[in-house]
Amino acid sequence: MRKSIATVCLSGSLEDKLYACADAGFDGIEIFEPDLVVNDRSPEEIRALVDRLGLSLDLYQPFRDFEGVGPDLFEDNLRRARARFETMRRLGIGTVLVCSNVATATIGSDRVAAEQLRRLGDLAASYGVRVAYEALAWGKYVDDYRRSWEIARLADHEAVGVCLDSFHILSRGHDPAAIEEIPGEKIFFAQLADAPDLTMDVLSWSRHHRLFPGEGAWDLGRFVTHLVRAGYTGPLSLEVFNDVFRQTDPGRTAEHALRSLVWLEDRAARLLADDGVGPAVVLDRIADVDVPTGYDYVEIKAEDTHEVEVMLDQLGLTFRGQHRTKPVRLWSSGAANVVLNEQRARDLAPHVAGIGLGVADAAAASDRARALAVRAVPRRTQAGELDLAGFVAPSGLEVFLNDRRTRTPAGTEPAWAAEFDRGRPGPGAGQISGVDHVNISHGWDTHDEAVLFYTTVLGLESPTATEAAGPQGLVRSQVMRTADGAVRISLNVAPAGVSHPQHIALACTDVVAVARRAGERGLPRVPVPANYYDDLRARFGLDDTTLALLRDHQLMYDRSEAGEFWHFYTPRVGHLCFEVVQRVGGYDVYAGDNTPVLLAAQDRLDRAQRSRLSRSSGVSVSAGEKSSPAR
Amino acid sequence: MRKSIATVCLSGSLEDKLYACADAGFDGIEIFEPDLVVNDRSPEEIRALVDRLGLSLDLYQPFRDFEGVGPDLFEDNLRRARARFETMRRLGIGTVLVCSNVATATIGSDRVAAEQLRRLGDLAASYGVRVAYEALAWGKYVDDYRRSWEIARLADHEAVGVCLDSFHILSRGHDPAAIEEIPGEKIFFAQLADAPDLTMDVLSWSRHHRLFPGEGAWDLGRFVTHLVRAGYTGPLSLEVFNDVFRQTDPGRTAEHALRSLVWLEDRAARLLADDGVGPAVVLDRIADVDVPTGYDYVEIKAEDTHEVEVMLDQLGLTFRGQHRTKPVRLWSSGAANVVLNEQRARDLAPHVAGIGLGVADAAAASDRARALAVRAVPRRTQAGELDLAGFVAPSGLEVFLNDRRTRTPAGTEPAWAAEFDRGRPGPGAGQISGVDHVNISHGWDTHDEAVLFYTTVLGLESPTATEAAGPQGLVRSQVMRTADGAVRISLNVAPAGVSHPQHIALACTDVVAVARRAGERGLPRVPVPANYYDDLRARFGLDDTTLALLRDHQLMYDRSEAGEFWHFYTPRVGHLCFEVVQRVGGYDVYAGDNTPVLLAAQDRLDRAQRSRLSRSSGVSVSAGEKSSPAR
Repeated sequence: MRKSIATVCLSGSLEDKLYACADAGFDGIEIFEPDLVVNDRSPEEIRALVDRLGLSLDLYQPFRDFEGVGPDLFEDNLRRARARFETMRRLGIGTVLVCSNVATATIGSDRVAAEQLRRLGDLAASYGVRVAYEALAWGKYVDDYRRSWEIARLADHEAVGVCLDSFHILSRGHDPAAIEEIPGEKIFFAQLADAPDLTMDVLSWSRHHRLFPGEGAWDLGRFVTHLVRAGYTGPLSLEVFNDVFRQTDPGRTAEHALRSLVWLEDRAARLLADDGVGPAVVLDRIADVDVPTGYDYVEIKAEDTHEVEVMLDQLGLTFRGQHRTKPVRLWSSGAANVVLNEQRARDLAPHVAGIGLGVADAAAASDRARALAVRAVPRRTQAGELDLAGFVAPSGLEVFLNDRRTRTPAGTEPAWAAEFDRGRPGPGAGQISGVDHVNISHGWDTHDEAVLFYTTVLGLESPTATEAAGPQGLVRSQVMRTADGAVRISLNVAPAGVSHPQHIALACTDVVAVARRAGERGLPRVPVPANYYDDLRARFGLDDTTLALLRDHQLMYDRSEAGEFWHFYTPRVGHLCFEVVQRVGGYDVYAGDNTPVLLAAQDRLDRAQRSRLSRSSGVSVSAGEKSSPAR
Repeated sequence: MRKSIATVCLSGSLEDKLYACADAGFDGIEIFEPDLVVNDRSPEEIRALVDRLGLSLDLYQPFRDFEGVGPDLFEDNLRRARARFETMRRLGIGTVLVCSNVATATIGSDRVAAEQLRRLGDLAASYGVRVAYEALAWGKYVDDYRRSWEIARLADHEAVGVCLDSFHILSRGHDPAAIEEIPGEKIFFAQLADAPDLTMDVLSWSRHHRLFPGEGAWDLGRFVTHLVRAGYTGPLSLEVFNDVFRQTDPGRTAEHALRSLVWLEDRAARLLADDGVGPAVVLDRIADVDVPTGYDYVEIKAEDTHEVEVMLDQLGLTFRGQHRTKPVRLWSSGAANVVLNEQRARDLAPHVAGIGLGVADAAAASDRARALAVRAVPRRTQAGELDLAGFVAPSGLEVFLNDRRTRTPAGTEPAWAAEFDRGRPGPGAGQISGVDHVNISHGWDTHDEAVLFYTTVLGLESPTATEAAGPQGLVRSQVMRTADGAVRISLNVAPAGVSHPQHIALACTDVVAVARRAGERGLPRVPVPANYYDDLRARFGLDDTTLALLRDHQLMYDRSEAGEFWHFYTPRVGHLCFEVVQRVGGYDVYAGDNTPVLLAAQDRLDRAQRSRLSRSSGVSVSAGEKSSPAR
């Protein structure tokens, strides 16, 4: 189906928006009237620019407060409409969105509304344009799409149909299935927006918190199937009022927006296929999602990785060797592989630069990523080296997909491990058994885009978000994970201006043994306050022996109905730290109540370090800074 | 009354919070348990620090999910309570907050809850502490303070009383008047929070959007009168969960918080006096608010004010002279006085640094500001010069109060104008008649504090907030004004990282004449797009003559039921621009629909300037940068 977007979704001038939409690959746009009014180009110039960019102008919006009024106001409303139709003529736009009256309506009669829309239809027809009537969720009399269709039906005019907006329908909890009762040719336009499940007044929810499909709580795929089954053949168009997207780079937001529509169309196609419905309209499909089976490796980049390697040794990982052709070193233990990639980048502090994930079919998974317009990572490989497909996630993290078929026959060892030599052979035999999760930090302006990326490209799920109070404000977290927990990525948004460390959580089956051995080898630890252990005693009624064990090894603890969680953190090295975790029983979450303890302890360590460093030159690399992707 | 604050209101470590509360002048604090748990000081160390700082520890909070449970869980809850009472003993805290059960309650019986609280009372008494039972707005069975009091009454234990939190009572719309039916000695604690009038789930509203008294929609003064009439003699304590205050400097937030309590106590005292109620407890009063009568002057600081002076001349203001002892120049027209203050500060771009306001009694108004702990502006004056009292508003703006009594007998001319010479005598005779409003820009982290400042110190009112879409995101505005409109200050919050210009809006009675004259003298203008005039025609049905007049002079227009608004803007000079406005009839608002036109036009001008400047050194002074207050 054709893909459109309303200019109100993006930041910048109208020209910025048009270029961004064309670059991302949209077919058309909706002109949001205020974007035209504030612009210094004439309608004719805009029309010519849109033509040159290969876009179509699909909708002019919104026209407000038209129907259900007395005779004098109605005449003035027709005068207003004439002026807008004149502008549409200059722009060459064929359809106008008419929202149900929220302000000036005094007559709640479907008959009167229909009669007035018929008059509007006559006027529209004289300009060669069509009226798409939409029930706003907060319309004075008309706030249900079934009623707006009833009025359009009564209007009985070829230039009068309806516009269906998923927000106005789903925010009210109205069943979208009745869309199928509307003749497809009378659905003049379809606007799509997802939204988080919020309890707030619907106007604020609509104006500030809409999301692109796939990012919120609603089943937009199902919504589209109703449109298709009704026979709708117009564009799928995004109308997403969101305070964040109004500020982010329009080029990036447009790519992100298009990704949501590509995913949505595929999703609707799959639902229709499941329903056994033949295509009334051709829906584009993309490759199946290939849910990752586990972490292949985690990659850390830095100018100097020495400090990290000391820590990995203390944690019991084994140095597996140096890459044959690159300044890259491998440490591992069990299924945990940590790749250290030294960069010629002055003062580049250690940070998590990439993750390798195992998939069933890397080629097909890469096709899907490319179909979703994800940027690929260019890599140099030499003869005999494995060519992993790599993609850039919204935070700049590089995600590499490795085929299960390229693993060595012996077992879990990935084939690329053979590219490393001069280290100890075989997987390390330490207590660390794998990667439990990776904790990424990104800005508030990247979060929704990141959720969409991990959902659509990798098929991860997003259980409920949490938040933890730190000394500098609330840190919000959302875990993206596979259903089986083999891959878990925690996405964190720190308060503005606060650098929140990434961390790599390593799994083990005996955290006390790891902690003891690490302690003997001199691993520093994030110190846990005595008050925390008093709190554990009060909360969980732990006995003295257990508390002493926890305290002696500076471990943290949590318990759910399913099991227990024992864990500890290392201090920060550059932008990252390590966590070692042991899950006992069916414990399947992340000890959220311990996060404030970590944040406060890190703050104390940071202050101590700042006071030590106060007279030397500070490290200025920010958490978001990326090194060159060449490797 | 004693003034307390919960540690959760502030950012930083527990020590940061304690120092901030002591510095601001609070009497005591509530320890929010998580702040203790994450801290590395022992309870004894915290107690000693609090002692040294002269604070008292008034409340330990919260203890959750105690009552309404079966026998096994009840025993575990008593065990939990014992552990907390032990911590309280080490801290030396006498009262614990027990919230109504939201999670584990299975028995909705007041009798059972009361019996369990009586058992808790016994345990508490053995530790010498008291239990303040509070109905959370989202309690499972107990969500109304009248029911929590009924349960506490049934518990009939000297160590069991209630805690009353304005949020939990007012968010549910419960009438607080029944507080007066509770014996004062059974009200063990009172927590105060204001909140904006939001429609959202009460838990999110409570956890993220509380405000300090005076900043929200509720009558907290009236709430306090009920406490006083009930005979409550404990502290007035702030418990304000707010995402912004969790991030701002704790010292600044504590001052801001204390200001709200000083104001609140005075407000309650006035209400009680109006009611004719004698003091059951002594309430501190401060000087009456002295609502300003108008703008005395607006002060612009810069390294070089020449460009601004050229613009003032083009706008028809008159150069009145140079200050006798300072590098300060005065321009005026009618009642509009613009003071230009040149600073020895390299590259300091022009910005609005201060406003002078006329008041009935500057000495009393200054007493009020000092009582509200507002920082004074230190100024050097020489013999024979007027000593204006100056105060620093949260955004850094300096507010000077000038006595009406110091005006010259002749009329509107302020006495300080005599300190300027070598200019033209008398008020300028241009078309500009005064200052209509001043538009200030500050960060999202300053807004609530600024609203409280203008409300409490100057008695300004805050009608509904608005927002305008700019190319870089939404700009939020709140106008603070006197009822008569003589002083209007518009507070603006721009998107993160966006510099939003301040502006000075000058009033006139013939904006066409001002615009014509200014145009003849070469004043550049913010260009208004032709599409805007097409939109005006469509919206208002303006005739061709009027539209031509508007277009020829690049004026903007708005209309309300009360009248019309004609206005134009100059381009930015440094961080400010000028607006010239003409209000026709009873038009009393600010043409909010025109703001996006201004924002888009400024963005075009800024881009054009950036591309001109791209090879020269950029101006790096940010909008928030302050010059030295010495003058």
